[in-house]
Amino acid sequence: MLTSANPPLYHQLADDLAQAIIGGTLQPGARLPSVRRTAHSRALSLNTVVAAYRMLEDRGLIEARPQSGYYVRARLPVLARTAPITSTQAAPADGAVLDLIGTVLSAQQQAGFIDLALACPKGGDFYPGAKLARLMGQVLRRQPQMLSTYALPPGSERLRTQIARRAMELGMALRPDNILITHGCMEALQLALRAVTRPGDTVGLESPTYFNLLPLLSSLGLKAVEIPTDPLTGLSLDALELLLSENRLNAVVAMPNVHNPLGCIMPLENKKRLARLVTHHRVPLIEDALYAELQFGETLAPAVKAFDTEGWVIVCTSYTKTLAPDFRVGWMEAGRFREAVRKLKFASSVAEPLVLSETLGLFLETGGYDHHLRGLKRRYASHVDRVLGLIDRHFPPGTHATHPAGGFLIWVELPEGFDTVALFHAALAEGISVMPGPLYSPGGRYPNALRLSCCYPMDERYTGALARVGTLACQQAMQRRLAPLPAAS
Amino acid sequence: MLTSANPPLYHQLADDLAQAIIGGTLQPGARLPSVRRTAHSRALSLNTVVAAYRMLEDRGLIEARPQSGYYVRARLPVLARTAPITSTQAAPADGAVLDLIGTVLSAQQQAGFIDLALACPKGGDFYPGAKLARLMGQVLRRQPQMLSTYALPPGSERLRTQIARRAMELGMALRPDNILITHGCMEALQLALRAVTRPGDTVGLESPTYFNLLPLLSSLGLKAVEIPTDPLTGLSLDALELLLSENRLNAVVAMPNVHNPLGCIMPLENKKRLARLVTHHRVPLIEDALYAELQFGETLAPAVKAFDTEGWVIVCTSYTKTLAPDFRVGWMEAGRFREAVRKLKFASSVAEPLVLSETLGLFLETGGYDHHLRGLKRRYASHVDRVLGLIDRHFPPGTHATHPAGGFLIWVELPEGFDTVALFHAALAEGISVMPGPLYSPGGRYPNALRLSCCYPMDERYTGALARVGTLACQQAMQRRLAPLPAAS
Repeated sequence: MLTSANPPLYHQLADDLAQAIIGGTLQPGARLPSVRRTAHSRALSLNTVVAAYRMLEDRGLIEARPQSGYYVRARLPVLARTAPITSTQAAPADGAVLDLIGTVLSAQQQAGFIDLALACPKGGDFYPGAKLARLMGQVLRRQPQMLSTYALPPGSERLRTQIARRAMELGMALRPDNILITHGCMEALQLALRAVTRPGDTVGLESPTYFNLLPLLSSLGLKAVEIPTDPLTGLSLDALELLLSENRLNAVVAMPNVHNPLGCIMPLENKKRLARLVTHHRVPLIEDALYAELQFGETLAPAVKAFDTEGWVIVCTSYTKTLAPDFRVGWMEAGRFREAVRKLKFASSVAEPLVLSETLGLFLETGGYDHHLRGLKRRYASHVDRVLGLIDRHFPPGTHATHPAGGFLIWVELPEGFDTVALFHAALAEGISVMPGPLYSPGGRYPNALRLSCCYPMDERYTGALARVGTLACQQAMQRRLAPLPAAS
Repeated sequence: MLTSANPPLYHQLADDLAQAIIGGTLQPGARLPSVRRTAHSRALSLNTVVAAYRMLEDRGLIEARPQSGYYVRARLPVLARTAPITSTQAAPADGAVLDLIGTVLSAQQQAGFIDLALACPKGGDFYPGAKLARLMGQVLRRQPQMLSTYALPPGSERLRTQIARRAMELGMALRPDNILITHGCMEALQLALRAVTRPGDTVGLESPTYFNLLPLLSSLGLKAVEIPTDPLTGLSLDALELLLSENRLNAVVAMPNVHNPLGCIMPLENKKRLARLVTHHRVPLIEDALYAELQFGETLAPAVKAFDTEGWVIVCTSYTKTLAPDFRVGWMEAGRFREAVRKLKFASSVAEPLVLSETLGLFLETGGYDHHLRGLKRRYASHVDRVLGLIDRHFPPGTHATHPAGGFLIWVELPEGFDTVALFHAALAEGISVMPGPLYSPGGRYPNALRLSCCYPMDERYTGALARVGTLACQQAMQRRLAPLPAAS
C-alpha cells in the first residue's frame, strides 16, 4: 500500500534526475545520457534505467524522441509573483466570494464528481487506515470502558506528550500541559480567532489565503486586510510591518510552512523577523501549520512558533492531512492566550473523543509515523510532478504554476483576462470539480487562477479529467483570443 | 453490567411501592403492609418482599421500626418554586459568575476529587462501552479504509437515517437530509446561536439554565434575559410572551423535556403554545433536547419541535448522555436555518468522524438502544431516589429539592440566606466537588441553591461524600443560625 522506506533503485534514479531537472541542472531541451551510459555510470541494470526514464516520461519531465534519445521537456513556467494588492482597506469578505464558496462546496458534495479540487483524499491508500483500525481495536480491548468516559480539555495526555515530542522536529519546545487537543485544525483556527478578536476587528490575511477562513471571519463579524504574499517566499513582511506600525491589525493569520494554496516555505530569516514583528507590536499571530510536516525536504524548516519568545504566536495544526482524515484530531498551543482558548473550547464543543486521541497517541509512540510520512511525502512529490507535467501538456500557453515545496496543492495562473469561475462552471457541467482563484481572496482577486489538488489516485479518471479541464481552458483562451492554442493540443 | 430488560421480581415490587410513595398514595408516616401480607396479596415469596423492602430502605424511602414494621419516611419537600426574577434587563453574563464557572471547572479536573457535580459519569458501567467497542471493531473490519476518508456535512447517512427514525419517539417527523451531525450537543447549540444572532443581540434564557450557555453567550457578545422557570412546568410562557411582544428577544434557548438543572418536563399544552409563540413572533427557539430521551416515563413526552410548523424551532441534542460520552456525536435540525448552520459547521470544524457516526448508526440499527435506555433510565431513577433520601437524611431542615422527571440531576435549595459558594469551597477543601447555584444564572441568582449529579456509582465513596456535604451544610446553617440542626444528624 504505502511506498516503502527504501524505494526501488529505478525510483531512486528517477528522483535524482527529477531533482536535477527541477533544480535547473538539466535545462529544458537538454539530452539525457543514454540508457547504456547511465547504466554504466550508476552501476545499474539497463532495465532499471529504462524503468526510471519511463517514470520521468510519465511525470512529464522528459520526452523520448525517436532515434534520438530522451530530452528534458519544456517546463511549465514557475509562478514568480501574483497580482499586486492594490488596496489595504479592511473589509468583510465579499458576498459574491462567500456565495461562490458555497456553490463550489455544494458541487463537491455531489456523488460521482471527479474532484481535482478539495484538499481531502477520497479513495486511494494514502493513509494507514487499516493499521490505525488495528491500533484502535487494541486500545479498545485494553480499555473497553473508554467509550463510557469524558475526556475534558486539554485532552489525552498520551497524545499531548507525543505532540510535544514531535513538535521539536519543527523547532518548537512545547510543554504537553500547554497543548490543547481540538476538533481538527479548523476548530483550532476558529478558537484562536474568537480568543483574540472581537466583532468589527481586522485580521491580516495572506493573499491568496485558505478559502475557509473567509466564511469563518465573516461569521465572526471580522474584517480582513489582504497582505501581498510571494509565491516563493510567502507573506510580505514589509507590507505587514507597515500595517502593524499603523495599528491597523488586531491579528494576523499566516501559513509560513507549506502555504495553502501557494505551497511555499517562508525563508528562515523571514520567520525570525515575523516572530519579532508580532512580538514588538503585541499583535497575535495565528500560525496555521497544517501542511508543515508535509515539507518535501528531509529536514523540516522550523515553525515561526519556534521563535516566539513572549507567547504572541498561536500555532494550530492537525493530523487530518498527514495521517487520518477521519480522526479530526488537531491541536493548538496558544501562548499567552492558552487559558482563554481552553475556556472557549469547553464552552464551544466541550471535549474530544479519547478513543481517537489515544489511538493516535499509540501510533505516534510506536514510531510508525515517520515511516508513513516519508512515504506520503515522496508520493505527493511525485503526484505534484506528474500534475505539473499534465498542466504543461494540456493547458494554454502562458499558464504559470507554483512548484510547491511540500503538500499536494498547485496554484495555477492562466493568462490575464482568463475567467476561472467560467472554467469552473464549464468543468462542473462535465462532472469535474476545480477550485477557482477568487475563492482565495476576500476581495475576489485572482480571476485567472485555479487551485488543483494532487491528493487523489493518479489514475486515468484523474488524469483524463485534468486533461479535459486543460482543453476547456484552451477553448476559453481561443474564444477570448488570450493566446494561440499550444502546439501540443 | 446493565440492568436487564426484565428486572427481578423484588425490583418490580420496589418500583411499584416507590411510585406509590413518590406519587403520594403512601404518605410519610404510613405503615407498609407486613411482609407476610404483601407476599400473600402479590403471590410472591417472603424473600422477594424482604429484598424489595430492603431496597426501598436503601433508597431512603422507608424505614424499619423495631417490633413495629416498615414506615414511609418523612420525605424531602419538593421544590415548588424558585426565587422570583426581579429584573428583565438584557445584560451580558456577570463577570463574577463566569469566573466562578472557571473555578468550579478547574476544580473538577483535578485528579482524585469526588465529583457530585458534573453531568459526566466517571467510572461505573452506565454505558455499553464494551459493546460499542465490538461494533466499532466490526465497522472497521468491514471498511478498513474508512479512517482515510473525509465525511463532510451533513455527515453519515446511516446515522441520520436512524436519528430520523428515533426522533419519531419524541413526536418529530424529520427528514434525514435535514439533519446535521455535530460535535456533541454543545457544538449544535453554538452553531445555532451563531446562525441566528449577531453580537449585541439578546437571548432569552430559562432561569436557572445550563451553566455552559453563559460563557458561550459571553464569547459571542450576546446579552441574556432571565425568564422565570417553574421547577415543575418549566419556562413561564406568560413572561416569554410579554418579552416577545415587546420585541426584546432575538432568540430563546429552552430545555422543555428534562430541564437542566430542574429536571422538569413542560406540559403538553405549554409546548404547543411555545411553538405557536415563537412562530407568531418569528423568533428562533433553540430547543436543547439533550436529556429528552432520559424521561423516566415509559412513553416519551414530545419535543416542542414536534409542533414546529414553519421552521422556527432548532432542535439540538446528542448521544453523549444516553449512550457514549466519548463519542461526542450530536445532531441538530435547524428548520429554516438549516443552510446557514451547515455552512457555519463547515467553516467552524469542517466534519465529524465517520467511524464514530457509523458505529452509532449500527448500534441504533441493531436495536440494542431501547434495551439499554430502559435499563439506564431505571438505574438513574433509582439513583435519584437514593440521593433524595440522602439529602433528606443529611441536609439541614428547610432544604427543598426537585424530584426530577428524568435524567440524573437534582436541584437543591437550602434555606434562604445560605451561601452555596462558601459550601463549594468548604467541600473543595475536603476533596469534594459540587455545583453552586449562581453558576446557573447570568445574574448570579440562586445563592442558596446547589446542583447535584447522580450519574456516578452509588458506592460508599459517593454516599459518604454526599453525607459530608450535608454535614458541612448543617454547620454553615448553624453558624448562620438559619435553622436548628435536624434531629437525624
